[in-house]
Amino acid sequence: MRNILIIGAGRSSASLINYLLEKSVSEKLQITIADISIDLAESIIKNHENAKAMVLDIFDEKSRVSAIKNADIVVSMLPARFHIEVAKDCITYKKNMVTASYVSDEMKALDAEVKAQGLVFMNEIGLDPGVDHMSAMKVIDRIRENDAKMLLFESFTGGLVAPESDTNLWNYKFTWNPRNVVLAGQGGAAKFIQEGTYKYIPYHKLFRRTEILNLPNVGKFEAYANRDSLKYIKTYGLENILTMYRGTIRRVGFSRAWNLFVQLGMTDDSYTLEGSEHMSYREFTNSFLGYNPHDSVELKLRSYLKIDQDDIMWEKLLELNIFDHTKKVGLKNATPAQVLQKILMDSWTLKKEDKDMIVMQHKFGYEYQNEKRQIESTMVVLGEDQTYTAMAKTVGLPVAIATLLILNKKITTPGVQIPITKEVYDPILKELEGHGIVFNEIKTPYLGYNPDIVIG
Amino acid sequence: MRNILIIGAGRSSASLINYLLEKSVSEKLQITIADISIDLAESIIKNHENAKAMVLDIFDEKSRVSAIKNADIVVSMLPARFHIEVAKDCITYKKNMVTASYVSDEMKALDAEVKAQGLVFMNEIGLDPGVDHMSAMKVIDRIRENDAKMLLFESFTGGLVAPESDTNLWNYKFTWNPRNVVLAGQGGAAKFIQEGTYKYIPYHKLFRRTEILNLPNVGKFEAYANRDSLKYIKTYGLENILTMYRGTIRRVGFSRAWNLFVQLGMTDDSYTLEGSEHMSYREFTNSFLGYNPHDSVELKLRSYLKIDQDDIMWEKLLELNIFDHTKKVGLKNATPAQVLQKILMDSWTLKKEDKDMIVMQHKFGYEYQNEKRQIESTMVVLGEDQTYTAMAKTVGLPVAIATLLILNKKITTPGVQIPITKEVYDPILKELEGHGIVFNEIKTPYLGYNPDIVIG
Repeated sequence: MRNILIIGAGRSSASLINYLLEKSVSEKLQITIADISIDLAESIIKNHENAKAMVLDIFDEKSRVSAIKNADIVVSMLPARFHIEVAKDCITYKKNMVTASYVSDEMKALDAEVKAQGLVFMNEIGLDPGVDHMSAMKVIDRIRENDAKMLLFESFTGGLVAPESDTNLWNYKFTWNPRNVVLAGQGGAAKFIQEGTYKYIPYHKLFRRTEILNLPNVGKFEAYANRDSLKYIKTYGLENILTMYRGTIRRVGFSRAWNLFVQLGMTDDSYTLEGSEHMSYREFTNSFLGYNPHDSVELKLRSYLKIDQDDIMWEKLLELNIFDHTKKVGLKNATPAQVLQKILMDSWTLKKEDKDMIVMQHKFGYEYQNEKRQIESTMVVLGEDQTYTAMAKTVGLPVAIATLLILNKKITTPGVQIPITKEVYDPILKELEGHGIVFNEIKTPYLGYNPDIVIG
Repeated sequence: MRNILIIGAGRSSASLINYLLEKSVSEKLQITIADISIDLAESIIKNHENAKAMVLDIFDEKSRVSAIKNADIVVSMLPARFHIEVAKDCITYKKNMVTASYVSDEMKALDAEVKAQGLVFMNEIGLDPGVDHMSAMKVIDRIRENDAKMLLFESFTGGLVAPESDTNLWNYKFTWNPRNVVLAGQGGAAKFIQEGTYKYIPYHKLFRRTEILNLPNVGKFEAYANRDSLKYIKTYGLENILTMYRGTIRRVGFSRAWNLFVQLGMTDDSYTLEGSEHMSYREFTNSFLGYNPHDSVELKLRSYLKIDQDDIMWEKLLELNIFDHTKKVGLKNATPAQVLQKILMDSWTLKKEDKDMIVMQHKFGYEYQNEKRQIESTMVVLGEDQTYTAMAKTVGLPVAIATLLILNKKITTPGVQIPITKEVYDPILKELEGHGIVFNEIKTPYLGYNPDIVIG
């Protein structure tokens, strides 16, 4: 038996563990789920004979080292900032390691040691980052192998509610961490390059500068720019590319309405509101509007943000009860963002029967024998239920597949890495297809980045 | 002879030193100006017999200590972050100290020691902070001495160009540090209280939520909210006040146009632009607009920010040459804010004959014997020339006067303090009147904070 240690039994662990348990007999796997909560760990393994749950406090060095020593490979599903201690032990005890998180500077600094030991430390092997890297690099490598030149790369991902569960005016529910949704886009201007020109969008304009996407068989979507689209230019070997843009997908109309919260200042997480605990939703809303004893909060908001009374955006605000004077915030020393999250969770929390959906689309523009061409590659994954959500599948399965491939010495190139080489993405993408995670490619006329044609 | 050590021969030192030199014979003063630049220090004293210039590197402990030991009182006109070393030496050698800067946490922490030594460390004794504290507390104390109850305090200050030098469409030139003007309002939402309701304005709305002010004999102005108006509620003893608002004064129309830069993202100082050095002003502007090969930068900007072609805001933008493709930025790795500052300095730098103007207005609302009353107190100071500017006078004179009063033991209450007690503000305001720094008080009907009446 080979021992796989999985640290952290979070939301995406269900699909990850299910995959490994299904392979556990044929592949001779013994799986240990270590979590600070034994109940959570036990609920996931459901008494499977090849799995066991254990309590693990990641900061208790003795038990952490003992768990890692006993493993043949270590998967860390902890929040990203906790990986580093596990990583150092993995070097000491010569264990391969897998995470779904962005490579931190600390992790990157271990590269030489990891290589010297001949170990594989695979990171960014979830959905985004993860599936996006692999599916993009597969097409980019193929284009370049044909001596074609990359001109454009755009990549969009969204975690959304499935069409059958899409029951509110915002066409949105929280399928992942609500806090990340409220804070999305903050912390600096969005940066990208379009047709050779660097472009910068400040946070307060981000949701008014969306791109429109048409996803075959799924419909029309919109996307707002990610913070730093330039980051992977070097990683993907796309130096001198004319257009590089990464964005987050939402249903059309979401961003225009979300922008109202941004404009009001309700997404601000940098200060706390006086007396937030006893504030009503209406008082919360009013604290971002001018004082006027003669006008209603409703009229002040409509006038301030120039919303006509028959505008659907107005209905969207009403649906969230932001003018309700009976509902109380009930959070002490809360930031505006924390209060907004509370208000949204009243309306946007998934119901038991709700299903989620992941959509991803890449656009590749290139020049081949003096002719410009374009490929669109699209993935749509629907959740099965509240355990095997589309998000859990698309994050957890790549982690599971990579873990087994490393254990079986199918992935052997050592180092702190992300899944951008053929050795990694070929077998993983192939296995993912068997689980319904499939990209459909179509050829389109070359558009470049041309907003008129794309939108028109 | 008594020795006054002035460290830092910056912009506001001219009026400060001039005042002390004029008193130097009758008051038996020997003044030493210490600066890292001997030329700067010498240019200010102009061979006056009671003054000498010396080179001082504030980080050279030996010469710093020696200079402080020889002084009877120390004035630090250094940037605020450099005061603390001087302050520690002043404690060691038992010297009183004066600064025009906000009290830092480090400075505040010295209070007990300063008191124990019986020393006076006077801070915030320039214009704003300084003259604002003194002129406000004088009226507030008077109101309270009559057993009246404060209901409202609003305070506005602006450093502007004098009417005779007001020659551009923005009605604005840089009369002080341009960088502070470009970054004004950043770093967090503006906070204040109006009629008992806390209000918050995010940066990207700050310049659209201005208040209108009428200054007797000077005209109509506007003001945008300062970052934290709540800060002085406790200091001024105004707990439970219904309205507390502090703002920055500009000529009407400035903020609406400045908001265009905010909306574009041009005031952002948090990241650097790719290739800023060789960018033209036009390329700089274009980097904040969407890519479109068919439209001009001009049309894209007008459409994005919804500016009609006959709107005066459009003329204001043209006046600054932001669409000029021949002018180059010429700054390496510059932030948007640095580039914008460069562009503005082309147009907004004071000419040799230009004069500046300082305006300040307080509004005091109170209840006296069940009757609500209001007082408006307004100060207007014009600069004489480019040396004795209104800014230099209103910052430098209070420092000079406080220094002499402390030296003459007219101000003796020990501690790290700001000028909010009668012992301090009474003699200083009286002396300032003789130099044209005068507040005119008028009684108005009680308005409270009522935007309709104020604007209408």
